[in-house]
Amino acid sequence: MPLVDQAPIQITTFGWVPPFARGQVRDLRVRWALEEIGLDYCVRTVGPVPPGYEREQPFCQVPAYREGDLQLFESGAIVQHIGEKDERLLPRDSVARARAIQWTYSALNSVEPYVMALAALDAFYPGEEWARLRKPSAREELGKRFSRVADWLGDNQWLEGDRFTIGDLMMIAVLRIMGDEGGPVAEHPALDAYRARGLARPAFQRALADQLALYADKPKGEAA
Amino acid sequence: MPLVDQAPIQITTFGWVPPFARGQVRDLRVRWALEEIGLDYCVRTVGPVPPGYEREQPFCQVPAYREGDLQLFESGAIVQHIGEKDERLLPRDSVARARAIQWTYSALNSVEPYVMALAALDAFYPGEEWARLRKPSAREELGKRFSRVADWLGDNQWLEGDRFTIGDLMMIAVLRIMGDEGGPVAEHPALDAYRARGLARPAFQRALADQLALYADKPKGEAA
Repeated sequence: MPLVDQAPIQITTFGWVPPFARGQVRDLRVRWALEEIGLDYCVRTVGPVPPGYEREQPFCQVPAYREGDLQLFESGAIVQHIGEKDERLLPRDSVARARAIQWTYSALNSVEPYVMALAALDAFYPGEEWARLRKPSAREELGKRFSRVADWLGDNQWLEGDRFTIGDLMMIAVLRIMGDEGGPVAEHPALDAYRARGLARPAFQRALADQLALYADKPKGEAA
Repeated sequence: MPLVDQAPIQITTFGWVPPFARGQVRDLRVRWALEEIGLDYCVRTVGPVPPGYEREQPFCQVPAYREGDLQLFESGAIVQHIGEKDERLLPRDSVARARAIQWTYSALNSVEPYVMALAALDAFYPGEEWARLRKPSAREELGKRFSRVADWLGDNQWLEGDRFTIGDLMMIAVLRIMGDEGGPVAEHPALDAYRARGLARPAFQRALADQLALYADKPKGEAA
């Protein structure tokens, strides 16, 4: 990973996040896509966000992405943009291409909201009475979603058969919000094996190591 | 709107939905995109879903889309696919194109989950104690999201300036889950005006009328 300003692609992420978020910051998805096709990138860290950052990322979140004249936010859009560069992430055939994009949207709109609905209860609302009462139904709804994806997968290696695409990258990134092993994913063997296949990819391992390295020497509590 | 099997594009939707969902079924987004560029389509209705439908739409939801060899689900992916056909929905310039796609993802991953978190409380969990306790924070979080989009818009007509794209189509479709006027959207004047501009488009009006017409003669309670 080169230093800032030495690569044509720049990712912006937070310079500090609490320990529970390390390895889960959304720039990981973008790093993973770039690692899959061997593209260099540099990292700009922010936090607190600089004045005017809302023109780069209207919700003041990360990642943000820069490449020449192009500025992008939304990890889905960034990963799709990176996919357009290389058929190892996004097939050129028009049907296969549309279906890979479909799964990217599916991960983000049909699965991630259910994952976050459960994950947020502990992460953002610990001790709230409504969160305690909500947990069983959130877990049940997530289980149904996972079940559907597991049924779809069956014995296939990836969502569209034997070819890894941005759709798999995003779906696996969403699944691992629930952890890298065990948890609700492990209740569905096809899904568990699918997650494991994704996490075993060298590009994922490099992306994760690089994100974790960024926070390795950072204090656990927020700096003053 | 031609009869089934007379158009190369087929949308699958539900033949019956409860009254509160009429005008909100997700096929509306696809109809709207097709109307914007004047493409004919036919409608297949299902309900209960036929055997094997989970191979078309793994979550057994709607819409599903067929065009020749291509089968797609996820309204975001379908709308993007339709956008690829015509620069009135998706600009050809690479930067403008990526940014239009970015807003489509943003509507579906950074805004819709917050909209649904609030809308679901009344629609799916009426009378639940957790839903009653949850409402104030769900409303506040949604307000913050709306505020960010309103700030981004400022005095602009559309998200990227003076050019309507699939990103606007999707963002406005998401905003109107909260209703076609008033509600939390109206607390943000820039967002309220933006929603109104979208809903005033003839293509939206045709799409909405066609969806409502499908349910006009259907009973309010589910048929046996």
